[in-house]
Amino acid sequence: MSTKKIFLEESEMPQSWYNIQADMPNPMLPPLNPQTLEPIKPEDLSAIFPMELIKQEVTQERWVEIPEEVREVYRIWRPSPLIRARNLEKMLDTPAKIYYKYEGVSPAGSHKPNTAVAQAYYNKAEGVKKLTTETGAGQWGSALSFAAQIFGIELEVYMVKVSYLQKPYRKSMMNTWGAQVFASPTDRTESGRNVLAEAPDSPGSLGIAISEAIEVAATRDDTNYSLGSVLNHVLMHQTVIGLEAVKQFEKVGDFPDVVIAPFGGGSNFAGVSFPFLQYKLREGKKLRAIAVEPASCPKLTKGEFRYDYGDTAGFTPLIPMYTLGHNFIPAPIHAGGLRYHGAGAIISQLLKDKVIEAVALHQLECFEAGVKFAKVEGIIPAPETTHAIAQVIREAERAKEEGTAKTILFNFSGHGLLDLQAYDDYFAGKLKDHNLTDDELYSALRKLDTPKIEQ
Amino acid sequence: MSTKKIFLEESEMPQSWYNIQADMPNPMLPPLNPQTLEPIKPEDLSAIFPMELIKQEVTQERWVEIPEEVREVYRIWRPSPLIRARNLEKMLDTPAKIYYKYEGVSPAGSHKPNTAVAQAYYNKAEGVKKLTTETGAGQWGSALSFAAQIFGIELEVYMVKVSYLQKPYRKSMMNTWGAQVFASPTDRTESGRNVLAEAPDSPGSLGIAISEAIEVAATRDDTNYSLGSVLNHVLMHQTVIGLEAVKQFEKVGDFPDVVIAPFGGGSNFAGVSFPFLQYKLREGKKLRAIAVEPASCPKLTKGEFRYDYGDTAGFTPLIPMYTLGHNFIPAPIHAGGLRYHGAGAIISQLLKDKVIEAVALHQLECFEAGVKFAKVEGIIPAPETTHAIAQVIREAERAKEEGTAKTILFNFSGHGLLDLQAYDDYFAGKLKDHNLTDDELYSALRKLDTPKIEQ
Repeated sequence: MSTKKIFLEESEMPQSWYNIQADMPNPMLPPLNPQTLEPIKPEDLSAIFPMELIKQEVTQERWVEIPEEVREVYRIWRPSPLIRARNLEKMLDTPAKIYYKYEGVSPAGSHKPNTAVAQAYYNKAEGVKKLTTETGAGQWGSALSFAAQIFGIELEVYMVKVSYLQKPYRKSMMNTWGAQVFASPTDRTESGRNVLAEAPDSPGSLGIAISEAIEVAATRDDTNYSLGSVLNHVLMHQTVIGLEAVKQFEKVGDFPDVVIAPFGGGSNFAGVSFPFLQYKLREGKKLRAIAVEPASCPKLTKGEFRYDYGDTAGFTPLIPMYTLGHNFIPAPIHAGGLRYHGAGAIISQLLKDKVIEAVALHQLECFEAGVKFAKVEGIIPAPETTHAIAQVIREAERAKEEGTAKTILFNFSGHGLLDLQAYDDYFAGKLKDHNLTDDELYSALRKLDTPKIEQ
Repeated sequence: MSTKKIFLEESEMPQSWYNIQADMPNPMLPPLNPQTLEPIKPEDLSAIFPMELIKQEVTQERWVEIPEEVREVYRIWRPSPLIRARNLEKMLDTPAKIYYKYEGVSPAGSHKPNTAVAQAYYNKAEGVKKLTTETGAGQWGSALSFAAQIFGIELEVYMVKVSYLQKPYRKSMMNTWGAQVFASPTDRTESGRNVLAEAPDSPGSLGIAISEAIEVAATRDDTNYSLGSVLNHVLMHQTVIGLEAVKQFEKVGDFPDVVIAPFGGGSNFAGVSFPFLQYKLREGKKLRAIAVEPASCPKLTKGEFRYDYGDTAGFTPLIPMYTLGHNFIPAPIHAGGLRYHGAGAIISQLLKDKVIEAVALHQLECFEAGVKFAKVEGIIPAPETTHAIAQVIREAERAKEEGTAKTILFNFSGHGLLDLQAYDDYFAGKLKDHNLTDDELYSALRKLDTPKIEQ
């Protein structure tokens, strides 16, 4: 019998999240208050975040306890299985061993609930009655809808209008979990009304939706805002993925040589890789961690490391990040979760320090890889996840050429059952790859007036 | 810590399927050849089924070994978790313990792959190059697409046209796994052309789709036909669900008082309940097994026990079954998998012998139950599965009234991520319940000229 799945018992679930800030060779630079250009203070954030999450954002402690109330909800789907992709190995005829951590088992179908549940819990604990958030393709919005419902918090989701119209079933999920979903830009906020006044038919953007969600949270006493990636506490919550995987690898007496994950803002990649990277950082263990971004939004491989805003409207603190500029508009690829102009501050510092690697892949190679995977392993991956699979296939083929056995782990961040239109478009030949011109790539960066960082 | 999920290791997965025919108080009556009205012989079926499945259809052996090749594919998602619905218990404030076996973890999202994989394997082993099947809402068609792809068999799926148009993403799944999907009625078969000649705009029906699929299989040497429910071997393959659940209950030192499952043709219900019923049949253990059918298609509670065809066109053998008549057209409820006029022969005999029970529930109560479940337990159920949940809530509320602790198990047969339109319709108030008139209920039965069974 060839074992495929490595399970953990609920009792083996991690008790704490891992905070990589305790082990970084160089600390991340401080986010700045855009008005004063001074490092932000906790009170700068307290209008929209609960104090416990603000503390988690800055803590240098290596381990942060996961509250039992959060673990109780995690147990609906966690620990998630670690699965050996034996059929894929066979198809590729590779000496490499390929494992994936399957996060599609969560109610929302992706890794996003790992932080959504924690954020809803801390907000609830501090008496917050309502949350707002934005969502693009809807993975994050549906995860937070689920979490808010579980803790009895109301939720308003500002969903990019073009996605709201194209992906009606993500909205249905959010409604089923009791959230209100608005097509952004709306007339509910000043930022939304300003956009509509200039462009009544605006299809919306993630930047506008973030502005609307923050505006609502900032102007109401009982309402906070919640973000699905980029921030330190969000990345830390996701480490439950990799912490489980470390234990699962112990069970089979193995350890990955390469860890691969899709890259949007960083939570997917951080979640699976940070818990393994601690052994590289503290014990010098050899490990490659590869973030895979879309070629249409290549901030890690072609962006600039400098201060920039997390949102298009410039409501957030200035974050030290690899960025293409907060006004960069990525092409409407189907991997909506990867269409983000910047990278979280911790990730950016680790990339600068060459602790991690990044590659940018085109959409067609990713879909081809996704279909290959679905055919032999059964599970249909989300477009975001196909980016990791494409890189896994590259690594496995390299292993075959070199004749070296190696162990590859990737984060199967979500299933594609609500993204099947993307597969239809792929099969129908509607998807095209496009190499960005220098002008397309750098015009938003050239216009930035945010502080540079000395290289 | 309150344990929610009970896992099994892959090594604890059942080695054999359970055949309840070995333990039935009365054997099922033999299916008849419609021409001769004699019991069917293996050669009557060999044009469309492989010999090994024909043997499984008639065997009286209690245990039938699961081939290692099938177990190898099962291991992609099996053993599936048994989950304690603690949040639902809390919401209902019931002394009952509620467990569900979660089959939504399969690649196709339902229990259907349990038999699809077995059927594809046996066909492959006997040199069959191609399979045909029908599908309504698409759960079965997608499960067989996955299984056929894994074993390298081509597949033609005849999908009821109205579903083909309404549920395009089920088709996308099937395409991703390499199947050809046709909107039935097609011009590829005589039965399809006959329908189109009379009604060019026919929306199709499961009966027509079955006729097309059987016709293609019967007229090609290298092609077989595959069915997703009703038949003995199909029900037996599904017992892997209940066999795992028996072991999982052993781990927590419990045993259900009530087992509940949705009822279409019988595979969902048989899969979870038969392995528990063996202890009732052999050892006299107390156990209620409740099949939940839709009030719009109430063959178990209001049908007649007699011989009838398994399909509308009358291509199949005559099966001894509770039926509403093979020309009965159920209302277009969203639980497409339950829209079947009859019940498998084994189930029918067990119901006649009062070994099992049946109830019929209306759609609105089921959706209300499904939304309640999704809100507290996270997972959005398929419309079929909501039927089981509604009955679970009834039983749990009764337990509260009576002040008796009891243990309830239900089969969470599939998630609803490809059925979100149904939830939209429910929230929009578009769904109505309708009590069938005697005329609607019995007109198809009155026209039957198939053999009656002495009661």
